[in-house]
Amino acid sequence: MLQRKLNVANLSTPIQKLETLSQTLGKDIYIKRDDYTGTEISGNKVRKLEYTIQYVLDNGYDTIITTGAITSNHARATAALCAKYNIECHLVLRGALKAFEGNLFLDAMLGAHIHVIDEHQSREKAMERLSKDLESENKTPFIVPSGASDWIGAHGYINAFEEIVKQADELNVQFDSINLAVGSGGTYAGLWYGKYIHNLSTQIIGYAVNESASIFKNKVIEIINELDEDITTFDTLSINDQYIGLGYAQATDEELQFYIDIAQQEGVVLDPTYTGKAFRGLVEEIKQGKYDDQKAILFIHTGGLQGYTEETRARIQRLLPTFNKDL
Amino acid sequence: MLQRKLNVANLSTPIQKLETLSQTLGKDIYIKRDDYTGTEISGNKVRKLEYTIQYVLDNGYDTIITTGAITSNHARATAALCAKYNIECHLVLRGALKAFEGNLFLDAMLGAHIHVIDEHQSREKAMERLSKDLESENKTPFIVPSGASDWIGAHGYINAFEEIVKQADELNVQFDSINLAVGSGGTYAGLWYGKYIHNLSTQIIGYAVNESASIFKNKVIEIINELDEDITTFDTLSINDQYIGLGYAQATDEELQFYIDIAQQEGVVLDPTYTGKAFRGLVEEIKQGKYDDQKAILFIHTGGLQGYTEETRARIQRLLPTFNKDL
Repeated sequence: MLQRKLNVANLSTPIQKLETLSQTLGKDIYIKRDDYTGTEISGNKVRKLEYTIQYVLDNGYDTIITTGAITSNHARATAALCAKYNIECHLVLRGALKAFEGNLFLDAMLGAHIHVIDEHQSREKAMERLSKDLESENKTPFIVPSGASDWIGAHGYINAFEEIVKQADELNVQFDSINLAVGSGGTYAGLWYGKYIHNLSTQIIGYAVNESASIFKNKVIEIINELDEDITTFDTLSINDQYIGLGYAQATDEELQFYIDIAQQEGVVLDPTYTGKAFRGLVEEIKQGKYDDQKAILFIHTGGLQGYTEETRARIQRLLPTFNKDL
Repeated sequence: MLQRKLNVANLSTPIQKLETLSQTLGKDIYIKRDDYTGTEISGNKVRKLEYTIQYVLDNGYDTIITTGAITSNHARATAALCAKYNIECHLVLRGALKAFEGNLFLDAMLGAHIHVIDEHQSREKAMERLSKDLESENKTPFIVPSGASDWIGAHGYINAFEEIVKQADELNVQFDSINLAVGSGGTYAGLWYGKYIHNLSTQIIGYAVNESASIFKNKVIEIINELDEDITTFDTLSINDQYIGLGYAQATDEELQFYIDIAQQEGVVLDPTYTGKAFRGLVEEIKQGKYDDQKAILFIHTGGLQGYTEETRARIQRLLPTFNKDL
């Protein structure tokens, strides 16, 4: 296990009870605000990057290459930490360039070198090619996978699990499950491994936002085995892929309406890529009785406010009749 | 003094040293990340609103009316807390409606009733009229001034001053001054009063972002006297109005380039309405020798990332040649 990490995120993050929803669903629903970790670095990624960037600094690398979608939260948090620690930052962003806003705006403002590739191109191959180019310029690049989801980054959520155990104690609550979005597997792997080493019964339940449950299970097992090769039983690994909807960062009107309802009931803005899909999945599954044996349920808000695009905002505006009328 | 407050912000907020700038300027420059207080509630306003909303709940009001610019951070934080605590929220926003983005998007998503008035209309009169209308509908509205800058909200920064004293102790630093943007006076008043009651020599230095120093000094004195009518000496009140530039939320290219430079050197994104102007003022004044008797200087990042508009981002894009080239 890695001992050294940066100390830049605003930890610990608060756990809040969602009062209205708890009453509606007849459960105690709590939300852990990992979207409160910072500003340029906000969201879950910084917990992982505290380990990743420390590892890069300790091992003599001077350049980071990482990847994500054009709207990637992970890419933006990496760009911010690279600026702070004087590391050259290269982002391989996949997709179509649209408005200069959100995370893309911040990436550029923070001085990251941005390399855009087509939707069908391999991010891994693009990073490998870039790495060779940078080596030929006498740089020593380190490739960070999408979401910093590897054995290094997973340490951030082993820590987060321990933080939750401590807070549950202070709140005098026993969480039956910890629920979260799964987009690259590292957050899930860290939480699951934290639960494993502390031998607790809390279920770790993931909601996939882009790939199938089986792809993510393999990814999570791979990361866990990098941390501890002796683990061979993964019965408690639980990932639900029934709430991906139209796909990565795509939203139906029904989903957008759900985000509006939660914002207006609880003052909590979910994001359209990760937390929105996952939290909607959780609420639907509770309604269907899948959580009937549970009382206290924790959801991790992993951030993503910068993921609202011009197009999504315009669609939300049409769903807000009061707003239009008042204007 | 008010004893009761909500407990929703992620406090305490970290204090970080700006390493590159400290070397360049030959001073120890620190930044307190009050932009790390949350997401929907991010920035300095939530420290004040923790007191304001508690006061509203404790005194039987069911509706809040407040005001700000279309891009107001205070309005957005108020909308979020009203949603959370089931208070009806009315925002009187002054200016021209442009893109549905940033704080305006969040206000609407969070269910606030939005009332837009022209640049030349009085916000106070508009709030009074609205209050009468709402009373005639049997509601009991409470009017919160711009920025929650009154004796109630100022409590949040008396607290913040005490938080800084504690952190300075832990960091083993003696801050010669605490520097901040002044947009409505409440944050300044709280810090100054905190310093006064603890009888410390730390200077509180404000940088006005819209009105003249004399207007703000009168405003600050008014708030302080609401807290303690016996105070009559205000010699140590220091507000600099030389860095307003083109006016509220307007930026020159030189200012935008400064924000880019700080982002790329330190990984810290300033905002174009408050912290950008104030921090630039601080750096300029240090260069001009006005801080020669000071060694450790603290700046409070009061938030405002949502204040970047489509227009400002487009202008920043043009100032980023590397970004354009790489694409």
